[in-house]
Amino acid sequence: MEKNNKLLSSRKEEFFIGWICGFVDGEGCFCVSFNFRDSMPCGIEVRPSFSISQKSHSLESLQILMDHFGCGGIRYSSKDGTYKYEVRSIKDLNQKILPFFRKHSLFTKKKEDFYIFDEVCKLILSGQHLNKSGLRDIVIKSYKLNGSGKRKHTLEVLLKFIDELKV
Amino acid sequence: MEKNNKLLSSRKEEFFIGWICGFVDGEGCFCVSFNFRDSMPCGIEVRPSFSISQKSHSLESLQILMDHFGCGGIRYSSKDGTYKYEVRSIKDLNQKILPFFRKHSLFTKKKEDFYIFDEVCKLILSGQHLNKSGLRDIVIKSYKLNGSGKRKHTLEVLLKFIDELKV
Repeated sequence: MEKNNKLLSSRKEEFFIGWICGFVDGEGCFCVSFNFRDSMPCGIEVRPSFSISQKSHSLESLQILMDHFGCGGIRYSSKDGTYKYEVRSIKDLNQKILPFFRKHSLFTKKKEDFYIFDEVCKLILSGQHLNKSGLRDIVIKSYKLNGSGKRKHTLEVLLKFIDELKV
Repeated sequence: MEKNNKLLSSRKEEFFIGWICGFVDGEGCFCVSFNFRDSMPCGIEVRPSFSISQKSHSLESLQILMDHFGCGGIRYSSKDGTYKYEVRSIKDLNQKILPFFRKHSLFTKKKEDFYIFDEVCKLILSGQHLNKSGLRDIVIKSYKLNGSGKRKHTLEVLLKFIDELKV
């Protein structure tokens, strides 16, 4: 009886895990952005992030996600009046976000985005963003991601900058 | 053992049901549109619909939904290059869509949209759209729904038309 109860309660957990996957399939964003930073070895800072935006009336759903993953933060964007749950820390991405979506596969095109994002995070974790060829590889892979919104810099501008590096 | 197997397989089903709810929480739309039609008793046709749009690379996810619900259709919109899974038939809405979301509650603001949509569908099923006061009630409720896209007619135009009816 106790065993069955455990199974029944894990059914509820399965529903919730399914809900997270469906919600992320619909609204989630796996993104990698790049900024010029003199202090970085190759002059470019690499910022991976996992995020979901919602209007204020659905703020609770972001809270549910944050509670589940136990990392990241929610902030308000006055630009478009939305709230965004975002995980930027590579440590949290590596320990909490990536393992979840490796285990619980997405169904839409975002599944492919996740594969690329996962690969890019692994490259960052192994320090590949700190050398010229590694950074080039990361930039090219990251620009294959959808849903990255408006890019500050075009792929061409970044690659030209990297190719001209004397590192 | 057989019982446990059944529970385990229903866990997978729970994941899938959760996925549908999460996906609809993120991308789904419960909408009611109105068109002027001389052939209708009150001169206005009421069209409820449940829909989800996706870009072509996520077409498969719409197919999954259609297979699950066993109703509706998928069509391409050349306007914005998206595919839309849509259920318009009041019979299918009543027998397949509404019971699903009554049983498996949504988490975001769409939960409130669903309550309104469910209420409007019940009014339509009881023929309330065929009399002046019922239609007025349906119009007011429906205009509280989000995500209905661009409205053909403003609430004021519809109410003015209804109030002037001699039916």
